[in-house]
Amino acid sequence: MADTKVYRASTTAPVNIAVVKYWGKRDPKLNLPTNSSLSVTLSQADLRTLTTASCATSFAGDSLMLNGEQSDISGARTQACFRELRARRAALEAANTSLPKLSTMGLKLVSENNFPTAAGLASSAAGFAALVQAIANLYELPDTPAQLSIVARQGSGSACRSLFGGYVAWRMGDKEDGSDSMADLVAPASHWPNMRALILVVSAAKKGVSSTSGMQQTVATSGLFQQRIANIVPANMTAMEHAVKTRDFAKFAEVTMRESNSFHACCADTYPPIFYMNDISKAAIRAVESINAKAGKTIAAYTFDAGPNCVVYYLDEEAPTVLGAFSGVLGGVTGWKEGSAGVKSSVRLEDGIASVLKDGVSRVIMTSVGEGPLRTEEYLVDENGQPAKR
Amino acid sequence: MADTKVYRASTTAPVNIAVVKYWGKRDPKLNLPTNSSLSVTLSQADLRTLTTASCATSFAGDSLMLNGEQSDISGARTQACFRELRARRAALEAANTSLPKLSTMGLKLVSENNFPTAAGLASSAAGFAALVQAIANLYELPDTPAQLSIVARQGSGSACRSLFGGYVAWRMGDKEDGSDSMADLVAPASHWPNMRALILVVSAAKKGVSSTSGMQQTVATSGLFQQRIANIVPANMTAMEHAVKTRDFAKFAEVTMRESNSFHACCADTYPPIFYMNDISKAAIRAVESINAKAGKTIAAYTFDAGPNCVVYYLDEEAPTVLGAFSGVLGGVTGWKEGSAGVKSSVRLEDGIASVLKDGVSRVIMTSVGEGPLRTEEYLVDENGQPAKR
Repeated sequence: MADTKVYRASTTAPVNIAVVKYWGKRDPKLNLPTNSSLSVTLSQADLRTLTTASCATSFAGDSLMLNGEQSDISGARTQACFRELRARRAALEAANTSLPKLSTMGLKLVSENNFPTAAGLASSAAGFAALVQAIANLYELPDTPAQLSIVARQGSGSACRSLFGGYVAWRMGDKEDGSDSMADLVAPASHWPNMRALILVVSAAKKGVSSTSGMQQTVATSGLFQQRIANIVPANMTAMEHAVKTRDFAKFAEVTMRESNSFHACCADTYPPIFYMNDISKAAIRAVESINAKAGKTIAAYTFDAGPNCVVYYLDEEAPTVLGAFSGVLGGVTGWKEGSAGVKSSVRLEDGIASVLKDGVSRVIMTSVGEGPLRTEEYLVDENGQPAKR
Repeated sequence: MADTKVYRASTTAPVNIAVVKYWGKRDPKLNLPTNSSLSVTLSQADLRTLTTASCATSFAGDSLMLNGEQSDISGARTQACFRELRARRAALEAANTSLPKLSTMGLKLVSENNFPTAAGLASSAAGFAALVQAIANLYELPDTPAQLSIVARQGSGSACRSLFGGYVAWRMGDKEDGSDSMADLVAPASHWPNMRALILVVSAAKKGVSSTSGMQQTVATSGLFQQRIANIVPANMTAMEHAVKTRDFAKFAEVTMRESNSFHACCADTYPPIFYMNDISKAAIRAVESINAKAGKTIAAYTFDAGPNCVVYYLDEEAPTVLGAFSGVLGGVTGWKEGSAGVKSSVRLEDGIASVLKDGVSRVIMTSVGEGPLRTEEYLVDENGQPAKR
């Protein structure tokens, strides 16, 4: 009797925001980085991708629907993920012939983010982490998160860090085949659970240079970049791991800010130069500096990825001061959680900074450190293999 | 009989805009730089300081009037210039006792710029060059421009390059006393006379970090800066000197743009970061890139000093294309010379760039490569030692 069943598995996966940045590939095909990096995994209550992987003999080929639209899966990176996961499933099926032959069936993937794509948040990390984890769940692979991170890395470099919660390093490795370039848990979310993140979403006039092409332009043309990968990042990795392990926020914050500066400096040193931050981003930097100056200690840290949005890390005990300083100016935009917009801070941002932020920040996202991928019984594909009505 | 005469001498001195940047002191007291630099001296027809140095036994102490206002001369740098020049005069007087004892008289200096201070153009280079040259004229010192550049350097580092016209290097030297840290003529203006500069004056919301304190923050905190001074600048100096000597505009332009990027990258890597360019500056960069892309070759180069103003270098033969592209957008602002604002360029800047420039550029200055300090019989102090009526 033919197998007509639709096999399904779902997972959610988190966004991560690097505090030691990934920028530069030593092997673009395998997505092997020029340097190690370290990130904080953000809570899935606020930012997550939900992906259902399904397969059936009746599915003609592979497909991926993302936020309601069919997505191109012909790219080498997506294909590499499918190929690697199928090979692992095929090995299981070869070892145990009673297993259904899922590796031979078409894959139907359906994926949704719980945050607006327009926010310009790097969603490819959560997306590839969810894709890999969902297929691994479907295939019942015995691989550890670290092993799966090697697969996710081939989809999108920073995706490997979204296979873990908490504080996660991506060790660059040194093998040519990339088999040691994988994610590694520095500390779980529970080790330092009071870490918070406030994201200031800045409406950019238009999309800048993509990070994939941008980083390779930096590798090829920046005269300062070699110094960054040879000396600056290794020192920052060591300092950051120590700061996380000892829960030293002032050091965590300093390295986070210096790292962001170093990364954007290398972008500016690229020829032609790449600018991800704009005048609004810079006002956010001045706001953080102002908060720290008025607090008399470092209680907030900024970091920017390949776009103008500012991520501010702070600890829950400093929430009134940090959130209040921003909500005093940005109280009118969406995203404040109950009670947080009305907080009276001891810090009042100066008018020059306040007016730029007011004009340029379109929404905020309040979140915290969170867990890695979570298996869920929520399905985006129904039992008949159709996109689920929601 | 007592000497009641008022002795006077005047000079004009030019502005220079570096194409290999000075940023960082290895000895802040002597103004000794961490690296050599190279600049283009701009025409005094458009930008110059006029300074009259006068002295008389009746003058009580030293004074400097700048653009109609008394200026503080108690700073160590100004004092160093006065002291050095007086010592040289005193040596002449000791060797020839028939000379009037100018070295013992009070100095009265009066100085005026022919460009608006509000333009935010680095006027300290022209100012200190004129101050030193005017006093040297008054004292009838036999020193060469290179020797005087050592004095001017102690007033303001980049001032040493304004002692020459044309294309000027500041050799960093290696002696501890700074006696070999001086300006050196790479090529006179006549060697490459068709060099032009268009300055886009950007109205900054407020003055940023001063270059004096900014550069020392970079030296102290930027992890990328050592790479710049050890490797990037020496290579750029060699490439730039060759480009000037061979009149290779494409190479001149590339090194100019990469140097500007490298300098601002090190500012961005400073902790806390220093940003001199704003979104208008970046639109000017995109405009230059667009002009070069549409011309199919490099005919324009941008550079930025410690502020948001953009200096665009180009050759006279490309004036219609380069000026036309900007005047098509900025035709309404002051500063265009006759005929230049109406030129039809083959390049039309895209709307996104055009609107940012239109909103942010307050005036333009059209100029060219020019000569070093020129002695003049125009005096800002009259024969009685009073500020001249003008």
